[in-house]
Amino acid sequence: MYASIEAGGTKFVCAVGNSDLEIIERVSFPTTTPEETMNHVFAFFDQYKDEIKAFGIGSFGPIDIQEDSATYGYITKTPKTHWVDFDFIGAMKKYLDVPMMWTTDVNSSVYGEAKLGAGVDLDHVLYYTVGTGFGGGSIYKGRFTQGHSHPEMGHALVRRHLDDDYAGYCPFHGDCIEGMASGVAIEDRLGVRAETLGSDHPYWEIEAYYIAQSVYNATLYLSPNIVILGGGVMKVPGLLDKVKVAFAEILNEYLQVPDLDEYIVLPKLEDDAATLGNLLMAKELATV
Amino acid sequence: MYASIEAGGTKFVCAVGNSDLEIIERVSFPTTTPEETMNHVFAFFDQYKDEIKAFGIGSFGPIDIQEDSATYGYITKTPKTHWVDFDFIGAMKKYLDVPMMWTTDVNSSVYGEAKLGAGVDLDHVLYYTVGTGFGGGSIYKGRFTQGHSHPEMGHALVRRHLDDDYAGYCPFHGDCIEGMASGVAIEDRLGVRAETLGSDHPYWEIEAYYIAQSVYNATLYLSPNIVILGGGVMKVPGLLDKVKVAFAEILNEYLQVPDLDEYIVLPKLEDDAATLGNLLMAKELATV
Repeated sequence: MYASIEAGGTKFVCAVGNSDLEIIERVSFPTTTPEETMNHVFAFFDQYKDEIKAFGIGSFGPIDIQEDSATYGYITKTPKTHWVDFDFIGAMKKYLDVPMMWTTDVNSSVYGEAKLGAGVDLDHVLYYTVGTGFGGGSIYKGRFTQGHSHPEMGHALVRRHLDDDYAGYCPFHGDCIEGMASGVAIEDRLGVRAETLGSDHPYWEIEAYYIAQSVYNATLYLSPNIVILGGGVMKVPGLLDKVKVAFAEILNEYLQVPDLDEYIVLPKLEDDAATLGNLLMAKELATV
Repeated sequence: MYASIEAGGTKFVCAVGNSDLEIIERVSFPTTTPEETMNHVFAFFDQYKDEIKAFGIGSFGPIDIQEDSATYGYITKTPKTHWVDFDFIGAMKKYLDVPMMWTTDVNSSVYGEAKLGAGVDLDHVLYYTVGTGFGGGSIYKGRFTQGHSHPEMGHALVRRHLDDDYAGYCPFHGDCIEGMASGVAIEDRLGVRAETLGSDHPYWEIEAYYIAQSVYNATLYLSPNIVILGGGVMKVPGLLDKVKVAFAEILNEYLQVPDLDEYIVLPKLEDDAATLGNLLMAKELATV
């Protein structure tokens, strides 16, 4: 058995799977305090404790992924004050001392999609999640693109839409992309949750512009072979097409890019990308 | 002998070097029409023609680097209309049929700095050139970060400085980073060349803000271990320090980054980064 924890800022999803990566059981619960939330985690895995060979864990962040760091396995800065400097891997190792892969939640998703989903056989796969938060990760030739730490693409600065005077809610950067276009930003800006806006609401043109700008900047910084757009906001009917139109307008034929219907896509694994990515990372970790 | 061509949008630099990567001879001339410019290139290499084992070529772009493409080795889109769809590698192969490494001019520089300069022993090295144009490239674990094509970091969109009403000159995107902060943008904006502005001119605060934003966005997209800032504009006394201050302000302590004096640096190879990068690529190509 392999175990997955998708530790999102809003909810945790825990799952166990077998060596065929079939999901045996999965639960989810809201992200509250570390104590309460981790107790839910442990309670779920208790019944499988003797069988779990490894964990794949993708967490909201920023997190410390440097194995030689004194705070490896910690969540570091986050607007969620309860979780600042929480020793996630330390807590997990105390619970069950098996191999653990530790990365960001969006890296779990890009791993799933790159190895099992829309990015199979491509050199360079980039994944954005546009949900409660906004984040991105990429895999180039089988490895996460990183260095001193992991990417934090959701906090990149953006060019403001001309019809948009929303200030942005990011406590660190104001009108960065997460501050302008995440699910939280939409609710803060319009007073209603994204999923309750009709798909013909004029706001979606602005949202598409910001998402397209993220796809554009990722194209210029990383030149991936595909950009996969996941997360709850992307489920709005028609939004993907609006993003493609806005992307083409921003690009203005400057670069040759793949056909947009193959370049900007929804996740093939749908909501399972992170769980399957985690289970695969756990399996690979346990079988080296 | 190994040969280097740094094909910049303003000038070409050609050089030959020996197997110790000592530069034996180097010339430079302005970039005019392809015919005239390539005749200068051939005339320079003629005297070494029998000894040259391989070429390392870094070109302004965008260029086609996909080896299975019908237009591999071409310059593709460029505001320099004479050079649109110019078959660079075709012309070179007709001149001398030896192995040729073909990449962007900024990738030549990042290769030099990563292997021989400020980035030696680091996993992920990013290089920006802030000169006539504005460009960036990165090397992660020995390989250029790329995918469907090469990065074009100079055309990323930026958040406008509050005191700046310059429209930007980029014919494709207006106020992208190259349109706002390259040497051409500075001259277009202020009517004088960057090197004639005193280092205490108030404009440098605005320039530093845009460069810092590029460093910030590269940090969020790629998380490199070092960001090396080359190009003529970076030679302005005090500009590097202004960039570090502006970077820290934008970052707002959101992420842990390396010590800024080690993270944001000038090139160790100074103006030789691209030539040495090309010579090394040529040497490696000839000795596999």
